[in-house]
Amino acid sequence: MPHCAIAAQTTGHAALHLITARTLSFIDDPGIVGEERSYEFHEKGAIVVDDDGSIAWSGSAVDLPAEHRDLPSTGYGDKIVMAGFVDAHLHFPQYRMIAAFGKDLLDWLNRYTFIEEQRYADAGFARQAAAKFLDELVRNGITSCLAFSTIHPVALDALFEEALQRGMALVSGKTMMDCNAPKGLSDTAETGYRESKELIAKWHGVGRLQYAITPRFAVTSSEAQLEATGVLKREHPDLILQTHLSENDAEIAAVANSFPWSKDYTDVYDHYGLLSEKAFFAHGIHLSERELARMSEAGASVVHCPTSNNFLGSGLFRYHHTREAGRPVSIGVGSDVGGGTNHSTLATLRDAYVVSQLVGSRITAFDAFYLATLGNSRLMHLDHEIGSLAPGRTADLVVLDPEATPIMAERHALSNSLHDELFALMIMGDDRAVAETYIAGKPVKSALAR
Amino acid sequence: MPHCAIAAQTTGHAALHLITARTLSFIDDPGIVGEERSYEFHEKGAIVVDDDGSIAWSGSAVDLPAEHRDLPSTGYGDKIVMAGFVDAHLHFPQYRMIAAFGKDLLDWLNRYTFIEEQRYADAGFARQAAAKFLDELVRNGITSCLAFSTIHPVALDALFEEALQRGMALVSGKTMMDCNAPKGLSDTAETGYRESKELIAKWHGVGRLQYAITPRFAVTSSEAQLEATGVLKREHPDLILQTHLSENDAEIAAVANSFPWSKDYTDVYDHYGLLSEKAFFAHGIHLSERELARMSEAGASVVHCPTSNNFLGSGLFRYHHTREAGRPVSIGVGSDVGGGTNHSTLATLRDAYVVSQLVGSRITAFDAFYLATLGNSRLMHLDHEIGSLAPGRTADLVVLDPEATPIMAERHALSNSLHDELFALMIMGDDRAVAETYIAGKPVKSALAR
Repeated sequence: MPHCAIAAQTTGHAALHLITARTLSFIDDPGIVGEERSYEFHEKGAIVVDDDGSIAWSGSAVDLPAEHRDLPSTGYGDKIVMAGFVDAHLHFPQYRMIAAFGKDLLDWLNRYTFIEEQRYADAGFARQAAAKFLDELVRNGITSCLAFSTIHPVALDALFEEALQRGMALVSGKTMMDCNAPKGLSDTAETGYRESKELIAKWHGVGRLQYAITPRFAVTSSEAQLEATGVLKREHPDLILQTHLSENDAEIAAVANSFPWSKDYTDVYDHYGLLSEKAFFAHGIHLSERELARMSEAGASVVHCPTSNNFLGSGLFRYHHTREAGRPVSIGVGSDVGGGTNHSTLATLRDAYVVSQLVGSRITAFDAFYLATLGNSRLMHLDHEIGSLAPGRTADLVVLDPEATPIMAERHALSNSLHDELFALMIMGDDRAVAETYIAGKPVKSALAR
Repeated sequence: MPHCAIAAQTTGHAALHLITARTLSFIDDPGIVGEERSYEFHEKGAIVVDDDGSIAWSGSAVDLPAEHRDLPSTGYGDKIVMAGFVDAHLHFPQYRMIAAFGKDLLDWLNRYTFIEEQRYADAGFARQAAAKFLDELVRNGITSCLAFSTIHPVALDALFEEALQRGMALVSGKTMMDCNAPKGLSDTAETGYRESKELIAKWHGVGRLQYAITPRFAVTSSEAQLEATGVLKREHPDLILQTHLSENDAEIAAVANSFPWSKDYTDVYDHYGLLSEKAFFAHGIHLSERELARMSEAGASVVHCPTSNNFLGSGLFRYHHTREAGRPVSIGVGSDVGGGTNHSTLATLRDAYVVSQLVGSRITAFDAFYLATLGNSRLMHLDHEIGSLAPGRTADLVVLDPEATPIMAERHALSNSLHDELFALMIMGDDRAVAETYIAGKPVKSALAR
């Protein structure tokens, strides 16, 4: 439990708190409204944090209302404060299972992932893992995420208990999988449905937690399980649903083989009513025009996971192609740890840039940081709570240090614009560039044991 | 100047020194002799360093000769000691110019690189830069490199003076370029030749320094300059020659346009006699079968620079294709900073793996660490001096810590083989995983100011 959170609890109604720094807050998608209109930036910015952990005021320090001028304050000088990062796709039980030498997705799942995930049947193991997982998010400035758990209810209990204690806005769900997986990692159409219902009743809406309906992917779910998932989704239409889609050629072939009646991979999920505005499909690298059009029509999102796609050789995601006018598909961004190679959102954005360069249509640093903050928050329908510095939002923040390492400091001396500075941060930065992480107004990174 | 180097100088003939750790030393190319026969590894290894900075003995600690058993020693426990990394391609004057937002190679050169490199006309600036550049190499466990300088003799003087003082085995040369570059960054066929001759006389063979003949690339050299370069090469057949080749489509088109008589890009260099066993061509991504066959015949090397190729979207290098039997081309590996995004050799190897996955023919961690140590050393004809722990080699070493960060420590708990451990190091590691760097038997990383 972070030191400062304890302090806040024991002092009860503490006074308002002022944070000064260079502040950056996105307003809208730079790819739609243009860079200039997409963000608000203040060289001398100020954020007033209320004692309930929300942002009471933010803007340029010169405009700070008189009543806030003498508040106790923390100054971050030339560091940049923005909304905390949101990771829209990763796997809690794979938090440490990075860099497994799998040939490709299916090989990697069978040889490493399904072994590691079976450990989460043990509640004690899962509790320890949850603490380490959330520590690692905090270390990287990630204040919210949409995460897979395992099939074990105890694993999700462990994750949610720990996140609740920390006051984090986490979205996760028990994974459902009833075929093509080891016994120790399989539920059934019936138990998957029932346990999900129980966990929804137990956790959804507790603190800042949300439950996500979580079928792993079409390869590991029977028709019966996907049917039951469709029922769950109809019974809980407001819940986020997360799964995987079109990551790898062999996976696509396996799905075509299991669902011979389907038009394509997307059609399998569609058939069971799983496409919606709150549905998240990780990867979506190899989608056909028909699939993209259908995803667009349904308002579903794909989550681009570049370090994972690169590490597993899954393919090169086409950002601008995927959002093409006429049938734009919404795009989020995620680390996909442990297929992804780094929890760091900065490392994720670096590889997103690399992928965009390799397909010949590069993204900007504004695109990238928008995706990782307001973009992901909007897709998750959480932008009323997180993703920007607008008053009323919860003060989940990341403090970025463009001079975190000797070579970054050297590079910083050449910076000539906000874009340049953000770009250097995402290309060169890692967890060291996260000087502090705030959750609900409390600094939590500096309070970590190490 | 590192503290310990001073100490050694003042004490004169210090005693032998013992280093204990897990030790790894490559013997041959794992892609040729097979993994098992490619390296020597000792769980409890020992290295005896002579007072002249050379390795007097190395092997398993149980075999340590009696006369070495009571030497003063440094123990690194479970950390891995291997030969220091060799970076076979990077640019000294771009050491801090990482993460410049260029669209592609030629745009990046004109908008950023050629501006930064002009600063190196100033000797004072170059001296400061040289110290910072070499500090950054040391921080990343890089003990030798093959580096471009700028056209300015004072810049190379600065680099070599600093490297000489540190006792480093550096290979570099004044860049020659006489067209398609700003005035402040252009020499002529005549001055390029003459200044190179003067610098060869002044520096080649001084301490551990070597001069490399360095025409930037065919885009920025006239026929007259390439002709003069051929003369230089004939007059100094033992020198390494370094340049760039087949990095980017627009570059290839520009070369075809400038040299309409050429069969292809490689043929331009060939025409002027620049292909040889000591010739290094950075990139070589898009080489035709004819070019690969000709490179193979000449014994020339390409240097794979994956973080740069990824960052600039230059294309995906095909490692196994390039070394195909029948016409195998030798391959080295380099960071290519500042087109590369990280001085870290581990980061370079990570992206080399990513590229190999994206082209569907993955390299192993043994391939990768071989390339960065003995592989590069052999290509540079320096393997009698560096690249392994064999007795007689200079004790240029890197000490790697597989548990350098909290998440690496978590991952380490899953490691089940040497390959797995090396693989996690290259996928997850950065400068923090370099616990110490030795140059000629002296620990130099811990002696850095920061």
